[in-house]
Amino acid sequence: MKIAVAGLGYWGPNLVRNFLATEGVDQVLCCDTNAQRLESVKRRFYGVETMNSFDDMLKRSDVDAVVLATPVSTHHPLGMKALRAGKHLLVEKPLTLKTSHADELVQCADKGNLRLMVDHTFVYTSAVRTIKMSLEKGDIGDVLYFDSVRVNLGLFQHDTNVIWDLAPHDISIMDYLLARAPLAVSAVGSKHFNDREDMAYITVLFPDNVIAHFHVNWISPVKIRKILIGGTKLMVVYDDMEPSEKIKMYDKGVDIKGKDSIYQVLVQYRTGNMWAPNVPQTEALMLMAREFIDSIKEGRKPLSDGVSGFNVVRVLEAADRSLKAGGKRISLSDEVTQDELDQVPVPGMTLPATA
Amino acid sequence: MKIAVAGLGYWGPNLVRNFLATEGVDQVLCCDTNAQRLESVKRRFYGVETMNSFDDMLKRSDVDAVVLATPVSTHHPLGMKALRAGKHLLVEKPLTLKTSHADELVQCADKGNLRLMVDHTFVYTSAVRTIKMSLEKGDIGDVLYFDSVRVNLGLFQHDTNVIWDLAPHDISIMDYLLARAPLAVSAVGSKHFNDREDMAYITVLFPDNVIAHFHVNWISPVKIRKILIGGTKLMVVYDDMEPSEKIKMYDKGVDIKGKDSIYQVLVQYRTGNMWAPNVPQTEALMLMAREFIDSIKEGRKPLSDGVSGFNVVRVLEAADRSLKAGGKRISLSDEVTQDELDQVPVPGMTLPATA
Amino acid sequence: MKIAVAGLGYWGPNLVRNFLATEGVDQVLCCDTNAQRLESVKRRFYGVETMNSFDDMLKRSDVDAVVLATPVSTHHPLGMKALRAGKHLLVEKPLTLKTSHADELVQCADKGNLRLMVDHTFVYTSAVRTIKMSLEKGDIGDVLYFDSVRVNLGLFQHDTNVIWDLAPHDISIMDYLLARAPLAVSAVGSKHFNDREDMAYITVLFPDNVIAHFHVNWISPVKIRKILIGGTKLMVVYDDMEPSEKIKMYDKGVDIKGKDSIYQVLVQYRTGNMWAPNVPQTEALMLMAREFIDSIKEGRKPLSDGVSGFNVVRVLEAADRSLKAGGKRISLSDEVTQDELDQVPVPGMTLPATA
Amino acid sequence: MKIAVAGLGYWGPNLVRNFLATEGVDQVLCCDTNAQRLESVKRRFYGVETMNSFDDMLKRSDVDAVVLATPVSTHHPLGMKALRAGKHLLVEKPLTLKTSHADELVQCADKGNLRLMVDHTFVYTSAVRTIKMSLEKGDIGDVLYFDSVRVNLGLFQHDTNVIWDLAPHDISIMDYLLARAPLAVSAVGSKHFNDREDMAYITVLFPDNVIAHFHVNWISPVKIRKILIGGTKLMVVYDDMEPSEKIKMYDKGVDIKGKDSIYQVLVQYRTGNMWAPNVPQTEALMLMAREFIDSIKEGRKPLSDGVSGFNVVRVLEAADRSLKAGGKRISLSDEVTQDELDQVPVPGMTLPATA
Repeated sequence: MKIAVAGLGYWGPNLVRNFLATEGVDQVLCCDTNAQRLESVKRRFYGVETMNSFDDMLKRSDVDAVVLATPVSTHHPLGMKALRAGKHLLVEKPLTLKTSHADELVQCADKGNLRLMVDHTFVYTSAVRTIKMSLEKGDIGDVLYFDSVRVNLGLFQHDTNVIWDLAPHDISIMDYLLARAPLAVSAVGSKHFNDREDMAYITVLFPDNVIAHFHVNWISPVKIRKILIGGTKLMVVYDDMEPSEKIKMYDKGVDIKGKDSIYQVLVQYRTGNMWAPNVPQTEALMLMAREFIDSIKEGRKPLSDGVSGFNVVRVLEAADRSLKAGGKRISLSDEVTQDELDQVPVPGMTLPATA
Repeated sequence: MKIAVAGLGYWGPNLVRNFLATEGVDQVLCCDTNAQRLESVKRRFYGVETMNSFDDMLKRSDVDAVVLATPVSTHHPLGMKALRAGKHLLVEKPLTLKTSHADELVQCADKGNLRLMVDHTFVYTSAVRTIKMSLEKGDIGDVLYFDSVRVNLGLFQHDTNVIWDLAPHDISIMDYLLARAPLAVSAVGSKHFNDREDMAYITVLFPDNVIAHFHVNWISPVKIRKILIGGTKLMVVYDDMEPSEKIKMYDKGVDIKGKDSIYQVLVQYRTGNMWAPNVPQTEALMLMAREFIDSIKEGRKPLSDGVSGFNVVRVLEAADRSLKAGGKRISLSDEVTQDELDQVPVPGMTLPATA
Repeated sequence: MKIAVAGLGYWGPNLVRNFLATEGVDQVLCCDTNAQRLESVKRRFYGVETMNSFDDMLKRSDVDAVVLATPVSTHHPLGMKALRAGKHLLVEKPLTLKTSHADELVQCADKGNLRLMVDHTFVYTSAVRTIKMSLEKGDIGDVLYFDSVRVNLGLFQHDTNVIWDLAPHDISIMDYLLARAPLAVSAVGSKHFNDREDMAYITVLFPDNVIAHFHVNWISPVKIRKILIGGTKLMVVYDDMEPSEKIKMYDKGVDIKGKDSIYQVLVQYRTGNMWAPNVPQTEALMLMAREFIDSIKEGRKPLSDGVSGFNVVRVLEAADRSLKAGGKRISLSDEVTQDELDQVPVPGMTLPATA
Repeated sequence: MKIAVAGLGYWGPNLVRNFLATEGVDQVLCCDTNAQRLESVKRRFYGVETMNSFDDMLKRSDVDAVVLATPVSTHHPLGMKALRAGKHLLVEKPLTLKTSHADELVQCADKGNLRLMVDHTFVYTSAVRTIKMSLEKGDIGDVLYFDSVRVNLGLFQHDTNVIWDLAPHDISIMDYLLARAPLAVSAVGSKHFNDREDMAYITVLFPDNVIAHFHVNWISPVKIRKILIGGTKLMVVYDDMEPSEKIKMYDKGVDIKGKDSIYQVLVQYRTGNMWAPNVPQTEALMLMAREFIDSIKEGRKPLSDGVSGFNVVRVLEAADRSLKAGGKRISLSDEVTQDELDQVPVPGMTLPATA
């Protein structure tokens, strides 16, 4: 199989390195308009071929799949071209800047019976997959909330705000783990140094009073990457800054012991053991590359497919809209229409609990 | 001076112990309707006097001041009685359940030239006072944001939600440190085990794009008590779970280096030293008790006076209202009227930036 | 039952408080030569009786047991008096300053059929008892080593060195958990501020190449209280500075996979899960007090009996002797005589491996 | 300048990568007897030359310097050859397995006016250099002790014990920071899985009661890399497992306030601020490579020169001898002869305090 990686800036070379090491990949073709980058990639990786024209590359019948590591704004036009040229497609996160664009890519891939995949790298970490397995086995029970903090003194991006820069990671993790359709999204943020938000809080509402919340921040003195997941059976802390023991599962929670009256539930605490499953140190990017190749070979949808890419973009877009609209809730579901969210809610209505 | 402590449940005895040890206090009188509690307090504290009638106690001309450690709903009626009987008044946090009640207490104390104080204990910790000093000296610069997380597996309260239970601590710290009038408040939360919210996120908006955010949670597997304060000069992490080094000040931040075009600011990172000021281990409750006595003796407003109690109740009340109204922003200022907040905001309006 | 607590300085009042709360204790009698201390104890604890003569107290036939919280040097003379007067005896740690004295107390208690107990408080913590249970169930396997660090900026003692001050805690934990007779002890230390060692390292050698090591230090900038226990099945970290999760058990270790030659063993790593058993927050001192009372009632040896007190003193005394003798090994067992340890060991002899 | 790297197993390629990126290096020549390794290095690094004969390589007059990343036992014979062939020499740590061999290398390099350097990588970390600077400026005061812990579940080495594997790091740090001649060394260890010690404690004694202590361990469940340095002015904690804030300097310590009698010193505690200097994230290996090249160009001794390599080997060799001799102290100085250390020390003698 021949893979073409387009865009050899910061991230592209990592993809080249991983595809070179992936079984089933015979050749990696590197494509960039910048001659210096092509030269550097040639020096660094033994035996790669280089091209400076994306269109010419697409014409090559021996190229099976295209990997886009180009700026986000190009994902849609270049991705459409690649799919129309009959190439399988892997796109860096986020898939696009607009939900409608993501939708077009998904439709186009479906029509051509091509694989469309997004590089939601975190979904391929041992940590996230271990949590997913526990969820699927029912160990964690029903998820009550998902709370994520991703803050540090970050590189200011000139062409995007902190939501589009940092939140894709956490929203893709949420989408993968919860695997539920959200009802509504709201966000609030603040800009201090230029006209892009450098910190923001995003809230995603789900049926059954399930709530997800994200703190993303470029101006924090300390680096925090922590996700709390409250389940009815277990509670999980995923701390990505821990060198080992990234995941801790707590046999802690609240047990309902019946009601002592119509209005009052008897609530009792449970404080049991904690355990930290052994999380093997495999490179997520390598697993992601392998999944792309395997999904092509096996003619099946990859794990982080176009739809998951669409889901993430949809939440990001709504969060950004809410941010710019004074924090109001944006509907993502027919179950709670925008009209219903806009009118002054009836007292007592905190969260849509449709389920 | 004679002090009467009313309410000897969970917290009252701590107040008795501290006032007994405060210079200038000659006698502590304990008042509760429960005979067993009075008996227990008598055994535990040498020489305290006990009474079972609040009204009789107020009639005692030798009682100078009353301390209320009774349920929150009684703070207003009992507090008004005490003030009308000419007693100085110290009330457990939160001051009241309604802004209007807090206001009445403030007015009444002013009229009677009596001291009114709220037990915002955290304001008296060495950690918070050290941060305040740094703010006042200008070391931290302008505050950009205030982010607070106070979560743990907490005691469910049957008569209140997590906002009224946990947030008073952090909002009183914010009120003391920022010393600014907020513009608006919003909140979102969720209830999972009974009809009270067990987790909530509160956002407080200030002029100049300053934002404060609070995560309070009764169903977290781990105990986190962490406040981040982003300043233009220094950034502060206050981690109350650290046995020592509760405060870390980072010479980290963002420097603006001019603009390279009309639209783009040149932003540069600064990564310097960190230091952890020595925070002496003094009991905050003891300092709080002393401040109450000193303010009476010196005829001056105490640090955590009625107005700060009012400020905290006002934010709590607005947060609770927002929670019940689908997260909409509640105005706390004439600068941004409720009407303005209610109408669909103009695109691009993220935060009211009135200053 | 009537208990007399002698010595009401720093620690005595804690014992008074706990015995007052122990079921089966009818009365606590406080004994000290200092009138002010007696007065203070009377104020603080409702209904205690006070005496200023130890000898008069011993004459009281209604006193069943004596608790010594007096300076270490008085433990032997006062303890002998109490036992000879037919009183059960609880002594603060360390039991005595000399092995011979500890032995005399043990003999005397045995002869009089009296309970002799040492306040090795740590043995009564949930953390240490949880480890003991795992050891007894065989979960941890054979212990390979015991490594303890107890360092902080500590109170310089004028009458003792850091070994006698800090090591009794860790050596009593080791004695309880390992429950084996050591072969030899050595120690090295250093004095920087007066003529008492302010830091020391103690090594205790056991059969089967088992080694225990202790770092005690009064001049450390940070407080570390950490014990590592390497077992053939599990490895344990007991970090007493952790607010929760004091104990972590690691399914990590080394598996021997046979030999690939006469000289070389095939060694393989095992990296599995970690878990932190729920360690309930009970007050160790309260459990210790209850054990003393229960052992008297039930006519049986208490957990931390005179022999365990003797064992600890024996190691401390040998460590101190080694310290003063240039670090040479002091024999504690007939299996390795002092003569054998003193002569230049044959090359290759690292540890006595008698078992 | 042309550099030849001999030995392309685990570590060699890292050296190749760094020398390729070092200014002043025109060419890197790779030498190994294993053809597969040479092939792999050729693929990985653009433009390197390969050779399979060390002797032929030495004959090349265009090779200026040799870097040895071969097994330790070959350092001496290959190093001597390289020096005799007139090549500058960089050797992986430890320099040799015997003090006499290290000495020969030093002499030979001196005679030939060639640079001899050891890759004591830690000496080139920002963390260690920051501590060194503070020591040189006098900020830390006199060092009282140096306590190092380097433990983890480590790769068992078949040809060496834990002392030769792990301790070179910490002893080279100690040698660099303290820059003093030790008096004596002792060690104790234990072997559990084969006939090599898998854990050991090393004590190094200096004049003035200064003590250094090392815990190295291959069978620890957790990875700890922590050094405590007690100074008369500041105390330092260097925790290499911290992602940032690797160094913390504590304004804590002990002040002597005079004597209240001939025998008793008045000791008082000082608890001040802590600070964590900003430690830039530079690659130590890169700085080490640059220092080697610079020292050649400038004709001066490099930082981690042959003598420092000799110093480290000397302590390692003595520790190993002590280990095998039942822990007895091995003299490293004329100030305390081996005879003096061997005879039963006079009581009271804890540490040789010659200064």
